[in-house]
Amino acid sequence: MNFFDRLHDRIRTVDSVVSVGLDPDPSRIPKHLREYDLPRWAFNRRIIDATHEHAAAYKPNAAFYEDPDGWRALEETIAYAHGKDVPVLLDAKRADIGNTTRQYAQLLDRADAITVNPYMGRDSLQPFLSNEAAGVFVLCRTSNPGGADIQDLELDSGEPVYERVAALADLWNENDNVGLVVGATKPEELEDLREQVPDLPFLVPGIGAQGGDAEAAVEFGLADGVGLVNSSRGIIFAGENDGEEFANASGQAAKRLQRRLNQYRD
Amino acid sequence: MNFFDRLHDRIRTVDSVVSVGLDPDPSRIPKHLREYDLPRWAFNRRIIDATHEHAAAYKPNAAFYEDPDGWRALEETIAYAHGKDVPVLLDAKRADIGNTTRQYAQLLDRADAITVNPYMGRDSLQPFLSNEAAGVFVLCRTSNPGGADIQDLELDSGEPVYERVAALADLWNENDNVGLVVGATKPEELEDLREQVPDLPFLVPGIGAQGGDAEAAVEFGLADGVGLVNSSRGIIFAGENDGEEFANASGQAAKRLQRRLNQYRD
Repeated sequence: MNFFDRLHDRIRTVDSVVSVGLDPDPSRIPKHLREYDLPRWAFNRRIIDATHEHAAAYKPNAAFYEDPDGWRALEETIAYAHGKDVPVLLDAKRADIGNTTRQYAQLLDRADAITVNPYMGRDSLQPFLSNEAAGVFVLCRTSNPGGADIQDLELDSGEPVYERVAALADLWNENDNVGLVVGATKPEELEDLREQVPDLPFLVPGIGAQGGDAEAAVEFGLADGVGLVNSSRGIIFAGENDGEEFANASGQAAKRLQRRLNQYRD
Repeated sequence: MNFFDRLHDRIRTVDSVVSVGLDPDPSRIPKHLREYDLPRWAFNRRIIDATHEHAAAYKPNAAFYEDPDGWRALEETIAYAHGKDVPVLLDAKRADIGNTTRQYAQLLDRADAITVNPYMGRDSLQPFLSNEAAGVFVLCRTSNPGGADIQDLELDSGEPVYERVAALADLWNENDNVGLVVGATKPEELEDLREQVPDLPFLVPGIGAQGGDAEAAVEFGLADGVGLVNSSRGIIFAGENDGEEFANASGQAAKRLQRRLNQYRD
């Protein structure tokens, strides 16, 4: 089954487009969990227990798992999320040449969807794009300050680089499995991109800690109701000062974001 | 000590600019090694033993290590290469926003240098750039067919995107720790880039399996004699049909590439 069809079902089931970013910064994991064999997995499990009823997807960022125990924690986390029927989008931003990117594409043996970086072009993404069951979110316009350095450069055709990336991603969408990553800090960019590629679901990060615009994220991020609006630290560290009860605040934060976003959904 | 100073010393010591790519595709690891606890580490150790006298650097590509045993194999590999006094460049092509890219930058606690992707701009690379002891190779013009999709787009200023990336990387080089990744399949691009950024060492992949031009790689890839020309499969799988003696052919292939490149060094 196509990833976006599965995501659509999940969004309807939980009435939520919230993506919960599972970025377990080791220095912010509650002290009582640090003695566990895999603290990141112990942390994520509690976050999933507290938030899954409000989660359309979980989005672990690969950066927080890049060591031997980290990959074990990530595997456990993905399996546990699947046990709760929540799809998992691995925020890995990968891309590489031929035989190498085929290795990276094996990450989709575990996760349901992945983020990829377009700088190396189509063949660097082909093994992801060819996986008909997986979702592939192409970085388009990121909301960090340096996002402008390359993405906003004006081409001789008059369009900025990120609009060309959106057009290319639309071309690469032969299997109805491509989405875009578009930040919410400039609502007018979201609006223009939605008009340009009406069929591509967006992953909109930057709600919460990054202060993006929730209304624009929902109004323009969804394609036929499908898309994701992510919050990471704003949810998972909401109970940072609550000791062993930390996950309760995460559940509440996920629910609050769900309601806030649902105001703008049709 | 600055990475490029260390690399310079290494290049002089072994009289070689060869980078050996450690990409241990599991399906191509010799059968007799597959029963080991960490086959990739067992493979890499034998390759390092056979090639280190010809290696200016080792370049493991992170894609081949993205699982729990893989990261253990990578850690052992890096430590072993260091035991042979060979610097290690982790070909990871990473970049992400703020707190996330700081996590990725911890990869430099182990490796001496890293490749990064410029699409998300300066702040996505800042934790790498701020590490004065580490080398940071920014993807500029890659030699894969899709490399043209984004990198060759013409800006309104008349230059292609990859030339702007080179100019930005030059600006970002406040700690004399920035290099560029430039493929060798179009020698004239290498030449133009060398003229544009005379001080940045290049990592030139694509010699060997990818069929790049060795003379141009040396003539334009080195900055004051410092730079790297990489071969991965052409070296590590040279003895693929030789059974338990596989590593001998790797040593010979590394030596052959060293000599071929040294013809063109000053």
